[in-house]
Amino acid sequence: MFDVKEIKKDFPVLQQEINGKPVAYLDSAASSQVPLQVVDAMSQYYATSHSNVHRGVHTLGERATSAYENAREKVARFVNAPLPQNIVFTRGTTEAINLVAYAYGLHKLQEGDGIIVTLVEHHSNLVPWQQIAKLKGAKLYMVELTEEGHLDMEQYQAFLKQGNIKIVAVTQASNVLGTITPVKEIIQAAHAVGAVVVVDAAQSAPHLKIDVQDLDADFLAVSGHKMLGPTGIGFLYGKGKLLDAMEPFQLGGSMIGLVDYYESNWAEVPARFEAGTPNIVGAVGLAAAVDYLTDLGMDNVRKHEEELLAYAWNRLAKVEGVEMYGPREPRTGLIAFNLDDTHPHDVSTVLDAEGVAVRAGHHCAQPLHKWLKAAATNRASFYIYNDEQDIDRLVSALQKVKEMFGYVTR
Amino acid sequence: MFDVKEIKKDFPVLQQEINGKPVAYLDSAASSQVPLQVVDAMSQYYATSHSNVHRGVHTLGERATSAYENAREKVARFVNAPLPQNIVFTRGTTEAINLVAYAYGLHKLQEGDGIIVTLVEHHSNLVPWQQIAKLKGAKLYMVELTEEGHLDMEQYQAFLKQGNIKIVAVTQASNVLGTITPVKEIIQAAHAVGAVVVVDAAQSAPHLKIDVQDLDADFLAVSGHKMLGPTGIGFLYGKGKLLDAMEPFQLGGSMIGLVDYYESNWAEVPARFEAGTPNIVGAVGLAAAVDYLTDLGMDNVRKHEEELLAYAWNRLAKVEGVEMYGPREPRTGLIAFNLDDTHPHDVSTVLDAEGVAVRAGHHCAQPLHKWLKAAATNRASFYIYNDEQDIDRLVSALQKVKEMFGYVTR
Repeated sequence: MFDVKEIKKDFPVLQQEINGKPVAYLDSAASSQVPLQVVDAMSQYYATSHSNVHRGVHTLGERATSAYENAREKVARFVNAPLPQNIVFTRGTTEAINLVAYAYGLHKLQEGDGIIVTLVEHHSNLVPWQQIAKLKGAKLYMVELTEEGHLDMEQYQAFLKQGNIKIVAVTQASNVLGTITPVKEIIQAAHAVGAVVVVDAAQSAPHLKIDVQDLDADFLAVSGHKMLGPTGIGFLYGKGKLLDAMEPFQLGGSMIGLVDYYESNWAEVPARFEAGTPNIVGAVGLAAAVDYLTDLGMDNVRKHEEELLAYAWNRLAKVEGVEMYGPREPRTGLIAFNLDDTHPHDVSTVLDAEGVAVRAGHHCAQPLHKWLKAAATNRASFYIYNDEQDIDRLVSALQKVKEMFGYVTR
Repeated sequence: MFDVKEIKKDFPVLQQEINGKPVAYLDSAASSQVPLQVVDAMSQYYATSHSNVHRGVHTLGERATSAYENAREKVARFVNAPLPQNIVFTRGTTEAINLVAYAYGLHKLQEGDGIIVTLVEHHSNLVPWQQIAKLKGAKLYMVELTEEGHLDMEQYQAFLKQGNIKIVAVTQASNVLGTITPVKEIIQAAHAVGAVVVVDAAQSAPHLKIDVQDLDADFLAVSGHKMLGPTGIGFLYGKGKLLDAMEPFQLGGSMIGLVDYYESNWAEVPARFEAGTPNIVGAVGLAAAVDYLTDLGMDNVRKHEEELLAYAWNRLAKVEGVEMYGPREPRTGLIAFNLDDTHPHDVSTVLDAEGVAVRAGHHCAQPLHKWLKAAATNRASFYIYNDEQDIDRLVSALQKVKEMFGYVTR
């Protein structure tokens, strides 16, 4: 296992005081912090290797291209993609899903075709499908939750049996409940009726070992900034035969073959989906983040989070008035909660004054919050640099909230 | 005026030797180098202020949001936009143009409507319009060049007179010829027939003072990485009344209002066009680049380039066998050329061995190269950190090419 004290040293942002208190950063599900190794890799790139990629024959152009394509190889290995060409760099998960929605959904769907989504989707894996459904006259079906808060797999199977399902869009881990969904089973069932599955791995890739071949995922979308990487970079994994048969999404330089006055044809995959100058330095940073996580070992990352989660769950359960949402297992390292009737924004404001950073709101998951019967929640999320002390600080700060809002028990 | 020797100190990448020679970087039209001030601003952001934007009420979330929105304000001032809300952050020019093509073109165009483009467009301001035209049954018209290499304004006026033109897509400066187009006149004429104009400012914003209000541009697209900024960030300027009436492009978090199971409505502009976590650190870097250029003064930037261009033009004109493309004026600081029958890739390979970095290829402008009757060209482009010595090195290296390929005169 790794030593969190050592890890914290790589994160200057966590060594600051905020409001006179050391910072307890419990908002990594929104954006993780970035270690010095990643920042240095990017600075180093600018100091030695920057240029545009692919089209230069000079040395800096070659260095930049090789840095960019090495990043693609690292990312491919990280999710066990068969080839680097299965990886398309995007700004993040949202763009990756939009790419599939536009370049696959818009072209392949016919009127009456069905798309299945689930109630635990982040808006980024729901709203694009609502929009494509509307544009193509396709139908959207939403898998809801059992009383225990798991995906209703019977409802899912019933949707599949209708015979019109072409796309299933599902998250591998809920960004609100942390619930890890049975993606492998979902994919098998979808494939049995000939549907393709788009996996939102924004909340799983930073925390779990991902194997796209074992999952048999058709598409899988990841954000760099939630896994120690910089903002502005993420990727889409896609099966080769699907990507090869797809139209482009954005159009411009690098994604074309021949361009004439009135028409053009397309470059090979993945260039076809990377119009314009890509976020080269972002890819370099993401590669350094992958290295950092790989050095720690994703199994260790997961183990550390499970320990922290267990500790946090037990401590929070003892705070009177705290309601935690979603089933205890299986989940990633995050807990959404409310404290009696105190508004989450008030809670997180008081926590912030204590140096404890949690997120408050609907976390881009309004349909799920409707189901939870909560307009908003607080969410504390843990990552490799968090320790039990951070959770102790959360718990003490919650006691402060209770004092401030003038109640001790319900 | 500024002192290039002092400026070079801000660019460690230019202080290296490449192939045993000091580097003469003449490829800024592809991607400019990034000064320490920009790299430091980004490192500093990660060390003190990183978090996700907009949705956090904790201190780091507020710092990140304020860094991101300050960047928007700086960019707005840089192009004299009326309000920060006129600025939508994108990955770069290509995404900015695709945003207009999808969110405006796809929704507003009808069968038979006309789109005007020009022969000097980069593929990024041509291929999206080809595609939208195809999808909507609209017609594409291409303004060609006069014998002298200027846009054929008579042909442009004739296209406008047809009565069906809804969109004009034009670059403010050619990325191959450097020619500065009469954008203001083009916009006035388009507005007279009710068409909107999309200006590709990728090659102009780094070099000329841009005033979107004076131009009366409807949309204007810029890349950060060509103006000292990091990769992965750029922006679209749009008139408020146009942006407000537009459908979104990408869908997901942050760009929505209310999300229900089967439908959603949209957030206000510019959030509506910024789905998902934006490239926050990229915006911070771009803001630092804007500061750097503003400190130098865009008039000085332009003056420096004009001097360099004059020097380079005169020196290259004396190299026997060099053919330079495009009219001498008005142009930005770049020269595309060929050397007798030597293939540009061979030329730039030899130049690279001498430490001189130029680009060789069609520069994402195939239709223009067809017109030039050149499959490819070499392109030397100048920026604030270049001096006469860089150009002297280019000229000597060209002499080497001639020696190597065994000819002294044609």
